[in-house]
Amino acid sequence: MKTPVPPGPDLDILQRIRDRLYVAAVCDALDKLGFRDQAMHHRLRPLLPDRESCGFAGRARTFRWMDIDHLVPDDPYGVEIEAVDSLRPGDVIVHSTDYGQRNAPWGELMSTVAKRNGAVGCVCDSQIRDCERIIGLGFPVYSAGIRPVDSQGRGRVMAYDVPVRCGEVLVHPGDLVFADFDGIVVIPRAVEQEVLREAFHRIDKESASRVALQAGKSLREVYDTHGVL
Amino acid sequence: MKTPVPPGPDLDILQRIRDRLYVAAVCDALDKLGFRDQAMHHRLRPLLPDRESCGFAGRARTFRWMDIDHLVPDDPYGVEIEAVDSLRPGDVIVHSTDYGQRNAPWGELMSTVAKRNGAVGCVCDSQIRDCERIIGLGFPVYSAGIRPVDSQGRGRVMAYDVPVRCGEVLVHPGDLVFADFDGIVVIPRAVEQEVLREAFHRIDKESASRVALQAGKSLREVYDTHGVL
Amino acid sequence: MKTPVPPGPDLDILQRIRDRLYVAAVCDALDKLGFRDQAMHHRLRPLLPDRESCGFAGRARTFRWMDIDHLVPDDPYGVEIEAVDSLRPGDVIVHSTDYGQRNAPWGELMSTVAKRNGAVGCVCDSQIRDCERIIGLGFPVYSAGIRPVDSQGRGRVMAYDVPVRCGEVLVHPGDLVFADFDGIVVIPRAVEQEVLREAFHRIDKESASRVALQAGKSLREVYDTHGVL
Amino acid sequence: MKTPVPPGPDLDILQRIRDRLYVAAVCDALDKLGFRDQAMHHRLRPLLPDRESCGFAGRARTFRWMDIDHLVPDDPYGVEIEAVDSLRPGDVIVHSTDYGQRNAPWGELMSTVAKRNGAVGCVCDSQIRDCERIIGLGFPVYSAGIRPVDSQGRGRVMAYDVPVRCGEVLVHPGDLVFADFDGIVVIPRAVEQEVLREAFHRIDKESASRVALQAGKSLREVYDTHGVL
Amino acid sequence: MKTPVPPGPDLDILQRIRDRLYVAAVCDALDKLGFRDQAMHHRLRPLLPDRESCGFAGRARTFRWMDIDHLVPDDPYGVEIEAVDSLRPGDVIVHSTDYGQRNAPWGELMSTVAKRNGAVGCVCDSQIRDCERIIGLGFPVYSAGIRPVDSQGRGRVMAYDVPVRCGEVLVHPGDLVFADFDGIVVIPRAVEQEVLREAFHRIDKESASRVALQAGKSLREVYDTHGVL
Amino acid sequence: MKTPVPPGPDLDILQRIRDRLYVAAVCDALDKLGFRDQAMHHRLRPLLPDRESCGFAGRARTFRWMDIDHLVPDDPYGVEIEAVDSLRPGDVIVHSTDYGQRNAPWGELMSTVAKRNGAVGCVCDSQIRDCERIIGLGFPVYSAGIRPVDSQGRGRVMAYDVPVRCGEVLVHPGDLVFADFDGIVVIPRAVEQEVLREAFHRIDKESASRVALQAGKSLREVYDTHGVL
Repeated sequence: MKTPVPPGPDLDILQRIRDRLYVAAVCDALDKLGFRDQAMHHRLRPLLPDRESCGFAGRARTFRWMDIDHLVPDDPYGVEIEAVDSLRPGDVIVHSTDYGQRNAPWGELMSTVAKRNGAVGCVCDSQIRDCERIIGLGFPVYSAGIRPVDSQGRGRVMAYDVPVRCGEVLVHPGDLVFADFDGIVVIPRAVEQEVLREAFHRIDKESASRVALQAGKSLREVYDTHGVL
Repeated sequence: MKTPVPPGPDLDILQRIRDRLYVAAVCDALDKLGFRDQAMHHRLRPLLPDRESCGFAGRARTFRWMDIDHLVPDDPYGVEIEAVDSLRPGDVIVHSTDYGQRNAPWGELMSTVAKRNGAVGCVCDSQIRDCERIIGLGFPVYSAGIRPVDSQGRGRVMAYDVPVRCGEVLVHPGDLVFADFDGIVVIPRAVEQEVLREAFHRIDKESASRVALQAGKSLREVYDTHGVL
Repeated sequence: MKTPVPPGPDLDILQRIRDRLYVAAVCDALDKLGFRDQAMHHRLRPLLPDRESCGFAGRARTFRWMDIDHLVPDDPYGVEIEAVDSLRPGDVIVHSTDYGQRNAPWGELMSTVAKRNGAVGCVCDSQIRDCERIIGLGFPVYSAGIRPVDSQGRGRVMAYDVPVRCGEVLVHPGDLVFADFDGIVVIPRAVEQEVLREAFHRIDKESASRVALQAGKSLREVYDTHGVL
Repeated sequence: MKTPVPPGPDLDILQRIRDRLYVAAVCDALDKLGFRDQAMHHRLRPLLPDRESCGFAGRARTFRWMDIDHLVPDDPYGVEIEAVDSLRPGDVIVHSTDYGQRNAPWGELMSTVAKRNGAVGCVCDSQIRDCERIIGLGFPVYSAGIRPVDSQGRGRVMAYDVPVRCGEVLVHPGDLVFADFDGIVVIPRAVEQEVLREAFHRIDKESASRVALQAGKSLREVYDTHGVL
Repeated sequence: MKTPVPPGPDLDILQRIRDRLYVAAVCDALDKLGFRDQAMHHRLRPLLPDRESCGFAGRARTFRWMDIDHLVPDDPYGVEIEAVDSLRPGDVIVHSTDYGQRNAPWGELMSTVAKRNGAVGCVCDSQIRDCERIIGLGFPVYSAGIRPVDSQGRGRVMAYDVPVRCGEVLVHPGDLVFADFDGIVVIPRAVEQEVLREAFHRIDKESASRVALQAGKSLREVYDTHGVL
Repeated sequence: MKTPVPPGPDLDILQRIRDRLYVAAVCDALDKLGFRDQAMHHRLRPLLPDRESCGFAGRARTFRWMDIDHLVPDDPYGVEIEAVDSLRPGDVIVHSTDYGQRNAPWGELMSTVAKRNGAVGCVCDSQIRDCERIIGLGFPVYSAGIRPVDSQGRGRVMAYDVPVRCGEVLVHPGDLVFADFDGIVVIPRAVEQEVLREAFHRIDKESASRVALQAGKSLREVYDTHGVL
């Protein structure tokens, strides 16, 4: 059920996205191109307390979890360990939903390996734990909550690098995942170039609108001139 | 992850339970023995329209589903086909929760095989489909709703005959599952004899209470005499 | 915490309401007088299968439940037994919400006493059990679901004949409670006469609209003439 | 905000769909063509009690509601009356979601006009009322519940024949809407012919599977031969 | 559907409320006068990180949104632009609920205009975006979450300065809206003077209680003396 | 319904737990001993903003609330005042769930008494208020939200020092309750010594894993050596 690991990411582009774009502008660009369901659900919030460094831009490495209700003593974590060890620079771990909400599938030790391997962030559509230590590491994680329990006997990674749904968005391995304080957006590979071009274009228009509003123009005048809100 | 298939059920006892007991009395017996969380959630309701024949008593054959978000073209159903073909007389299919609620993992063809093999019922903690035909077959199914979609690309059976959670009750393979119009109760193997004895005892007390109330006694008098409500 | 038991109801009026009015018309009358939140939540549905006899009109006798998480062996039911024994002709039992949704506080024996005492119906904002036998008795009950568990160790009646919230409507003892297949409405005592007068008036207008529509008039013409939809 | 009223439907095709297809087969055909989110949410259930005649096949006429919290005395129903009067043979009324769940925007008088004009059904992603009379009329309605309150001061139709979301499916005016006891599916215009062809093809394969299973073949054999479950 | 814009607020009173009162005391005063449902739902939380300056006191300017599922290319924002341009000193923007939860109807540019015009705060019963920049502006906003998507094609302002429901409280244009870290309360115009008088009186009693408790008195003694908790 | 007040806690042990253990390690120890449902629901989050001092370790003093819908003018708070006055050093107040979510049963004055009496924290499975002042006091509270309303006429303490459910965990009076930024865990008395021993043992293994990962070992190597994730 596993597809080949996607090619290593282009780290320069990721850095430029982080430095110059913001997520809301990318959402508007996706809207314009007709991709209107690419922003993850707002239950996913950043853990890191500094609003300016809580996010990331990277490429999706997906983990497919299954809820379980019993222990598998000789192999409680399935392919999770193998998947974490396979992380590379620029990767973003995307955990498929643990709907049972009884599980905290991401913690300190995983964050330590991920960061050491160059992964840039994690989205966990369930709970996480060891939060103080993850904050200490400075590794950006988004989650749907915090709960102190281990995944053993609650969930198990059954596959990785397969398409998954996370925060109600379908994510393919290798998709560009961009997160800041406003949330998380997923840019499908096929339209990545077009979306980024439109987003860079859009932030220029928003800057012009901002200046005009600060100069005392009405919203009506500014919208009629620049066409963005 | 699969445990050995449990031994064939004792069909006489199952028949006697269906004929003489009711689910509420078994719940009270379980309460008395300290097993207070054995009644499944009330979202699980019977499909068959005749209230007297909508239920069953049998032994649990558990199916462990995983939500998926992509097609597996060469093998879309995992071990589901093998599991259905393994059903035997007295079995009750217990589908572990499909939390995504996008899937209808039980339908007509499955019901046809199950009935033909002697299975006595099915509990599906998600949606079902082909309902008119299942009603036509007279195969008792309980579900959390009805939805016309197939499981392909939505969920997949990853294991069977393992402990699962269904309707928020932990069910082990071979557990006695008893359902009538009031709902579904799971009797753990270890206390089965004791629970059934207590339940048979209890229905006698309730009959006496009923007679006394119909004869005009107050609830206080009847409760003080028989000790049941 | 208990207020005096309200005076016995006027059984003739109740009968006339049951025979000639319907709940939707009473809701419209209440709307017109500015009481817009008197219809209970739609999670409360009738148990009796005959749509024409599933409802009732009577006066509220309220039961105030508290969730509990332990057994009180010497007195598991609190003032519930006393309250049920106090039921009189025309009464409607109104169970305040058991929010925990783990409890089925109404069953066959209670229904037997209630019916014998002349109570006309019950609204239980939680689960009920012994449903086949209650249907056999023909006692009208509305509930938020069906679950086979007893209230012992799950909930306990702490007071009765006090104001309670049920189905998200505030109900005072003695309020007129009217239920049919469309749902349940509570008419506050102070406006009872006015509401009933308006409702009887309204059903005449609706009959005229119905006749006109069947005669081929457009909805616009009919609404402009009669002013009701 | 209103688009032109869609052309009158082809009544013969609709009749043939009702007579020979079923909704689950259409969902499978849509799945095969990559349209995997066309089945409405299972909260939408049929009102008519006869399982065989509770559904319909027709073309969507969409109503766009807005929640309101005040009365508009001189015009409480917005463009609703105009929209209902515009219904034609083969139409299916599709009410956009009233998320507040406080409103019952469909009742007897509307059903009377709709039926008289030849509309074949209604989907209301909120509550309905006057249910006994609608059942008396035999007009097929699907709803998310039953509640006795009028829409005045709770919701208001702001537009019709515009794209709307209903049961979490995007519906365009003129889309084919097909409902039976298993639920409701929406077939986009662009793929209508292809979907129907595939669905008719599929029910033949399912019939063959059914026969083989009844003849005692294993599910494995039947699936390997016919490729459907 | 629009009522006349309410008269400009009395800025001195608003300042005095902000400086000397707190929201919990106003809730208690409203309780005492029988207005028990004036505190908005706790899903509405402040955006500004400084607990002491996250709130406001002002007069309600209400925005009535409708969920939409299609683009209106030539006029995507309805009367929203006009409404924002009409904001005046002391105004509080109150967005009626976007129940679909897919929309973020408030962002940086709106906040810029609102602040420039003298508005003192915003309550958005849905998501907001551009949060870092709004925090940079220091404009107080309360929301039910954060999501990076624009309102175009998701929601549309259909009216303003009409009664709306926000956070489950009915808000009329011109109502006093007071928010601090504990939440948001709405004071109806008719009882405004009485409520404020009672609230100022109440904080004196609470101060006395606090002093007595710190001096070692039991809660029983303090409550018997001052009558507040 | 009240059991005897449990014996005073062993303050030294509590201090040692706070200083040296963390909640996630205790959860893992409980898992190992088969107690898998002792972590409270993640809706309960700390109020104090400093992550390192937001928690506590103490012994449960339970408060059993009942939702009410009317005022009890002469005694609005039931046994709440008596219960608060009975607090002693090392106590943790555990409020049973107010399911109605309309109530904020903990505030500043209660916190003042609790802290003065030596109580070390509070868990309130509902809302709290007076948050700025509680933060000022530095008294650790966990809640499911913040809302500015008093409990009068919304809820009432009916018993204390009885078993209650809080955050979906059954808590007995005297149970050890341990909370940090990751959440709250309840250690049943009967296994307290064993759990603490296992937890201290476990944090040593985790420290070794951490060192090994930082030294560049793969997760596979580290897990195979130390057996913890």
